[in-house]
Amino acid sequence: MDDLKGKLVRACGFHAPAPGEIETLGDTLIDIARDGVIRDVVRSDEARYDRVMNEARRAARLVELPKGRFLLPGLVDLHIHAPQYPQVGNALDVPLEDWLQTYTFPIEARYADAAFARRSYSLLVEDLLASGTTTAMYYGTIHDEANRLLADICIERGQRALIGKVAMDHPDQCPDYYRDKNAKAAIAGTQSLIDHIRSHPDNVDGRVLPVVTPRFIPSCTDALLEDLGALAADHGCHIQTHCSESDWEHAFVKARFGASDAESLDRFGLLRERTVLGHGNFLSAADMDRIRARRAAVAHCPLSNAYFSGAVFPLKDALQKGLRVGLGTDISAGATVSLFDSARSAITASRMLETGTDPDLDPDSRSRHGGARIDFRDAFHLATAGGGAALGLPVGLFRPGFQFDAILIDPDAPLGSIRLWPELHDGEQILQKIIFTAARANIEQVWVGGAACAGTSFDRRAD
Amino acid sequence: MDDLKGKLVRACGFHAPAPGEIETLGDTLIDIARDGVIRDVVRSDEARYDRVMNEARRAARLVELPKGRFLLPGLVDLHIHAPQYPQVGNALDVPLEDWLQTYTFPIEARYADAAFARRSYSLLVEDLLASGTTTAMYYGTIHDEANRLLADICIERGQRALIGKVAMDHPDQCPDYYRDKNAKAAIAGTQSLIDHIRSHPDNVDGRVLPVVTPRFIPSCTDALLEDLGALAADHGCHIQTHCSESDWEHAFVKARFGASDAESLDRFGLLRERTVLGHGNFLSAADMDRIRARRAAVAHCPLSNAYFSGAVFPLKDALQKGLRVGLGTDISAGATVSLFDSARSAITASRMLETGTDPDLDPDSRSRHGGARIDFRDAFHLATAGGGAALGLPVGLFRPGFQFDAILIDPDAPLGSIRLWPELHDGEQILQKIIFTAARANIEQVWVGGAACAGTSFDRRAD
Ligand SMILES: [Zn+2]
Ligand SMILES: [Zn+2]
Repeated sequence: MDDLKGKLVRACGFHAPAPGEIETLGDTLIDIARDGVIRDVVRSDEARYDRVMNEARRAARLVELPKGRFLLPGLVDLHIHAPQYPQVGNALDVPLEDWLQTYTFPIEARYADAAFARRSYSLLVEDLLASGTTTAMYYGTIHDEANRLLADICIERGQRALIGKVAMDHPDQCPDYYRDKNAKAAIAGTQSLIDHIRSHPDNVDGRVLPVVTPRFIPSCTDALLEDLGALAADHGCHIQTHCSESDWEHAFVKARFGASDAESLDRFGLLRERTVLGHGNFLSAADMDRIRARRAAVAHCPLSNAYFSGAVFPLKDALQKGLRVGLGTDISAGATVSLFDSARSAITASRMLETGTDPDLDPDSRSRHGGARIDFRDAFHLATAGGGAALGLPVGLFRPGFQFDAILIDPDAPLGSIRLWPELHDGEQILQKIIFTAARANIEQVWVGGAACAGTSFDRRAD
Repeated sequence: MDDLKGKLVRACGFHAPAPGEIETLGDTLIDIARDGVIRDVVRSDEARYDRVMNEARRAARLVELPKGRFLLPGLVDLHIHAPQYPQVGNALDVPLEDWLQTYTFPIEARYADAAFARRSYSLLVEDLLASGTTTAMYYGTIHDEANRLLADICIERGQRALIGKVAMDHPDQCPDYYRDKNAKAAIAGTQSLIDHIRSHPDNVDGRVLPVVTPRFIPSCTDALLEDLGALAADHGCHIQTHCSESDWEHAFVKARFGASDAESLDRFGLLRERTVLGHGNFLSAADMDRIRARRAAVAHCPLSNAYFSGAVFPLKDALQKGLRVGLGTDISAGATVSLFDSARSAITASRMLETGTDPDLDPDSRSRHGGARIDFRDAFHLATAGGGAALGLPVGLFRPGFQFDAILIDPDAPLGSIRLWPELHDGEQILQKIIFTAARANIEQVWVGGAACAGTSFDRRAD
C-alpha cells in the first residue's frame, strides 16, 4: 500500500472525540494534503460526497481502501522506557528493588554501547509501529549518543516521537555506574538532545520532538529539578516524569519537600501544559485540580501499575475532573508493546477498582469506588485522541487540521485474532471486537502524516 | 512439519511439574510411540543419549526440531462456553443481567441452527488449536445436534476435548426460548451426547470425552441435579459446572439449600474426582477442604472474574491447600481464545489481590492477602500440567506415559511478538518471555497425541 499524501481516501472506520463517545465513519472521504494533514472529511450523507469523489477519481488521486477493513486513528503511547525493551516479559517475578537494581539499571547502563542501542532501538521502533503506535513518548537513557540514535531511528522510520534524555543525578537514589555526574552534566545532555532533534535536517516538520525528562523526583537533586524547569521554559519543550506512582514514591516526596509530587513539580516549573505525568495513582483531588489548572496530563499505565504500584489509577475521577489522560504501555514494567493491550488492561483494571478484589469481604466493603468502570469507548479515546490532547498534538482524530496518523485493521488477517460474524456484528460492536481482540497480524497498514511506515502489507512490500 | 507418532524427537523446551517448578529441557530426546504416547525421555547428560539418537537416526525415525525453537506442553483450557465464541470481545460494556438476557442466552439459542453451529464451532476449534490449546473442556448448548457437531469437529480436527450438553431446566432462571423442557429432557440430551461420543467410530482412543454439565445450580431443578449426579456416577463421566462465581450466585445457593455451592453439589453427587468447578472465587476454606477431599478441581478464569465476579479467586490459598487448579479462558466472558492471555491475567490478578486496588486506603488496609502473588512459573504449570491433573488426563508434561500434546514456539516468527536477545536471555528467562509475550503467530506447530494439527507451518502446508 502507498503513501496517502495528497490523496483522497475512501474508507470506513471509527474515531473517538471524547471519552465514551464514538463516531462511526461509514464510507467516508478523507482529503489529505501533501504535507500529511487532513484537509477535509466528507461523510456519505453529504450532498457533495459524489462530486468530491468523482473529482478526485478524475484527478487520479482517489484511493479506495479495501472493503471490510477499518481505519482507526494511530495509537498514542505516552510512556515508554525505550532502553528497557530487551527486558519486556522479564523480571516480573522479582520485588521492585531487585527489578531496579538487578535488571533495570544494568540494562539501561548497556546503552553506553552504541551498537547495542542501535539494534535495540531499531527493533523497538519497528515493533511499536507494526503494533499501531504512530506516536510514542520515550524515556531514553543518560547516554547522549544512544539518545541521538533513538531520535535518528524514529526520524528514519517515520514514527512521530517525543524523546527525552533521562536526567538522574541524585547519588542516594541512582547507582554509581548509571547516574549523571551532576546537575550540570544532566542539563548539558538534555540541551544537546534538544539541539540534535531541532536541528536535524530530516526533521524540519518537527515530527520528532525533545522532552525534558527528570526520571522522577527521588532520582534528581534540587539543583537539577530547578535547572530542568528553567530549560523547559526556555525551550517550550514537552516534559515527562513519574508522579505519585507508588506508596513509596508518594511518601518519599512528601518527606523531602513537605508537599505532594504534583505540587513539588509545580514549584520547580515542571508542571505545565505538555507535561505528561506517568502513573499518578496516588494523586489527591487537590493534585488533580492543580494538574488540570496547569493543563498538564497523566499517562495511565494500567498493566505496570498492577506489578509495581500497588493500586489502580482512579481514572474515572480524573476524567470527571476534566484532566487530560492518555495511555502508556510503560515498557518494560508493562510487558507488551501493544497499546491495544494497554487499553484492555485499562478496562479490566477499572472493573477491579470498582469491585475490589478481596472475596473475603462483603461486596460493599470490598471497594468504595462505585462507578469506576470504563468501557472500550473510553479506552479507545484514551489510546488515540486522549493521548493526542495530552501531548497538545493534532493527532488521534480524523478531522481537518489533524495529521493523518492512522492504522488499517484487517479483521480477516490469516494470523490475526479478530472474528466477525457479518450477521451479528456491526457499528460499535465491530470496534469493541477490535479493541478487545486485535493482534499485530491484524494491522495491515500504518501511516504517520500520510506516509506508509509499517503493517503487514508494508512488510510484504519490503520483501 | 509432520506427525511425530513413532518418532524420536530432538528438541529444547520447558515443562512445569509443579506450581513454581520449571524443568528446562536442554537438547532432549523424546521417544514417541505409534499411539502418540511418550515412551521415553533422554536428557543430554545421560550416558545413553548418543546411542539412542544414533539408533533412531539409523532407523530413519529421528526428527530434529529446528534450532532456536522451544517445545512446550500443549495448553489445557478448562472452561470454555463454545457457543459464545461469536461474542468474544463483545457485550463487555453492559451489566451482567443484560449480558445474559440480551446477548448470551440469545446467542446460545442460535445453535438450534446446525449450519450456524457448524461454522462457529469449526472456527472456534481451529482458533483454539492455532493458539496452542491442545485440550479444551467445553460447555455446549441445550441442542443435541449442535453438541454432536462440536464433538465431531473436535474429533475431525484432532483436538483433545471434553464436551458437555448444557443442562438447564429451571423456569425461574432460564428464559422460555432457551431451556430444557424438563429434567427428563435434559438427561436424555446428556445421555445422547455421551452415547454419540463414546460410540463414535473415529474416537476409539477416547480423545474426545463427554461431560455431565449442569450450567450452575440456579439454572437447574433439584430433580435435574439429582439425575445428573446419578448419570455421572453410572458413566464415570467428567463433570463441569460453575461454583461460587459471584456474590449473587453464592448467596442464591445458600438461600436455596442452606449450604454453599460446593457442599450442595456434593450432596447431589456432583463433586467427585474429575469434576471441574468454574471460578470458585467465593469458596470458603471448608469448601476448599471438601473439594480437595473429593479430588475435584477448580478452573481459574482470571479475566472473566474481573468483569463478572467482582473478586479475585484466592489461587494461592487453593494451591497451598493442595487443590487441583488449572486455567480457563471462560469464553466469552473472557475476551480471548489464548490461554497465554489467561496465564498473564492470572499473574496480574494475583498481584492486584495481593496489593488491593484502592489508592485512597493505606497499603496495609488496601488488602489483606499478602503473599497472594503468583509468577510465570505457577501460571505455566496451571496452563499445562495443572490443567491435565485437574482432568485426570496424562497431558501437560514430557514424561513417559504422557500423551505427546505439545506446541513449538518460534520466537523469531515474522508477525510474532517475542523478542529475544541472545546475550541477555537464557533458561527460564526465555520461558518468562514466552509466557508474557507469545502471540498466535509464534506458534509454529501444534501436536495432539503426536499428530500435527495446527500452527503456522501446518497452515502453510495446507496452502
Ligand atoms: Zn515509567
Ligand atoms: Zn462459565
